[in-house]
Amino acid sequence: MKKYVGKRSIEFEKPPCILSEASIAGKKEAEGPLGEYFDVIEEDPMCGGKSWEEAESRLQEKAASLAIQKAGLKPQDIRYLVSGDLLGQLIATSFGIMSLDIPMFGVYGACSTMGEAMTIGAILVEGGYADKVVSLTSSHFGGAEKQFRFPLAYGNQRPLSATWTVTGSGAVVLGEAAPEASGWIGIRRVTTGKVVDFGIKDSMNMGACMAPAAYDVIYSHLSDFGLRPDYYDRIITGDLGCVGRDILLDMLKQKGMDISSNYMDCGIEIFDDEEQDTHAGGSGCACSAITLTGYVLRKMKKKEWKKVLFVPTGALLSTVSFNEGNSVPGISHGVALELM
Amino acid sequence: MKKYVGKRSIEFEKPPCILSEASIAGKKEAEGPLGEYFDVIEEDPMCGGKSWEEAESRLQEKAASLAIQKAGLKPQDIRYLVSGDLLGQLIATSFGIMSLDIPMFGVYGACSTMGEAMTIGAILVEGGYADKVVSLTSSHFGGAEKQFRFPLAYGNQRPLSATWTVTGSGAVVLGEAAPEASGWIGIRRVTTGKVVDFGIKDSMNMGACMAPAAYDVIYSHLSDFGLRPDYYDRIITGDLGCVGRDILLDMLKQKGMDISSNYMDCGIEIFDDEEQDTHAGGSGCACSAITLTGYVLRKMKKKEWKKVLFVPTGALLSTVSFNEGNSVPGISHGVALELM
Repeated sequence: MKKYVGKRSIEFEKPPCILSEASIAGKKEAEGPLGEYFDVIEEDPMCGGKSWEEAESRLQEKAASLAIQKAGLKPQDIRYLVSGDLLGQLIATSFGIMSLDIPMFGVYGACSTMGEAMTIGAILVEGGYADKVVSLTSSHFGGAEKQFRFPLAYGNQRPLSATWTVTGSGAVVLGEAAPEASGWIGIRRVTTGKVVDFGIKDSMNMGACMAPAAYDVIYSHLSDFGLRPDYYDRIITGDLGCVGRDILLDMLKQKGMDISSNYMDCGIEIFDDEEQDTHAGGSGCACSAITLTGYVLRKMKKKEWKKVLFVPTGALLSTVSFNEGNSVPGISHGVALELM
Repeated sequence: MKKYVGKRSIEFEKPPCILSEASIAGKKEAEGPLGEYFDVIEEDPMCGGKSWEEAESRLQEKAASLAIQKAGLKPQDIRYLVSGDLLGQLIATSFGIMSLDIPMFGVYGACSTMGEAMTIGAILVEGGYADKVVSLTSSHFGGAEKQFRFPLAYGNQRPLSATWTVTGSGAVVLGEAAPEASGWIGIRRVTTGKVVDFGIKDSMNMGACMAPAAYDVIYSHLSDFGLRPDYYDRIITGDLGCVGRDILLDMLKQKGMDISSNYMDCGIEIFDDEEQDTHAGGSGCACSAITLTGYVLRKMKKKEWKKVLFVPTGALLSTVSFNEGNSVPGISHGVALELM
């Protein structure tokens, strides 16, 4: 049976249910405006490990374990993990989830990874290929700066367009909803991104790199389903920050779509720039993942928002391609959540 | 409807069909024992580009384009690309497939990526989430040595346990089989790997790192489906090489499974060590991908082999984790192909 819609979207006949969610946040994130919403605050940037990478692995392990526990399940009840991170060869994931001993699909969509992981997880569940799936991702400020820009000890200057990589990990357990349940959150639709390159070569301006990819997915999503922008209570991008937000809203306006009244960006919400000196906003896979699992899903459970289009955004930045003079393309993955 | 079997496998009720396949190989691969089987030989290690990474991107673009063309399709007929590579942040993929303008799922399973890409591709097609999917991957000797070991210009010594990264790219187009067709190759079953770590810390002995992961998938596959090892005409690992092969066969024998008579490793087949000085065998995502798309599928079309268990193997090597003193875990993805 055909489940695809329009040019690049899927509509789930039986929306997979978010059985549980977990958010692990670092100290700086806890001090930000969303601090009260996170499940666990990890005060130690090393998480008791010996390196930032090891710390990030521990964040993933904690997030997956907590989500599984909150669903009343054990690791052996989970059929697949769908996970990825920003580090080369997904080492935070590989080392983090190893002890859980669950078959894994490693995915990479830069900071849009949570959207990709939830899309594949939802397909596995709705298609009958799995009963329970964990979708998760992580990022770490120290590890990301070391991987992509400068080691922290250099103390390099950050321009105002730069974003601050969120330290944390977010996870959801996906499964079928109980037959008689109501008030649960389901994944109703997804729209998958393409690699979009507007030729931007500034690794300190990720928002501008990603905005065209977010535009591409939001525009395609609304077009594929024939939905008006105000169908959703919130349209939430991952980590465009202030620079990327303005570009996105302008691009959509040029197509006659005004989402400014119901638009939100996780990167803008998660830090208070004036207090925390984070500049354009938060970023990293965990930025959208913990804002979703900590804040957005809580708003939905309280029925403040009933329909949310979650659009995490990724800048496909690599030091190798960047140092060879290449641009930084973007990608984005749209996941429509509804209170059922 | 439940489509999962045993602990970690899927049986496809309507096996997705391999509509076409393409193999692009480098010069050294063309000079090896399988040289005559590849669709296209790329003599220039730069593929007309300016860097090894750009060359690898071009290999992916060529492989995807050729597979799409051989299926009588155009890029706009393909609903999703599922692709990945060995380089940090999947840059060969991102830059390679951009011009095709197809929604993409980026995946990472190290050298097992072709198995993961085909698994997700098969699920998308059989589940009704896509009509046509391209699964592909690539690797490049120069890019991989630079990323993981030493730049080629250093001329460092390679121990006999080392493998030689294959330069090339392999792609398949997956879709539904025509209703009346016969003699087509279908993906009948898949078994998904876990991250397996036996604590090996030698980046020059990838075979030993990956053998336990291959064992884990082959043993689970045969157990989940209750199949005897001789059910398959060939059980084909990705790039264990001579060292990994011996470990794998020993581990399976200890469980009472003897696959030595129908076992093959793409890494052992693709080069002639005595003539080509490649040591333990070929490796890299392209090793299994082009051996599959060039050689194995051709053998199946000629009905020499009717049932094949394809088990590409990946070593989750990263210079960051490796230099921090960590081991190199492995992962593997099993895909059972049958002539229908």
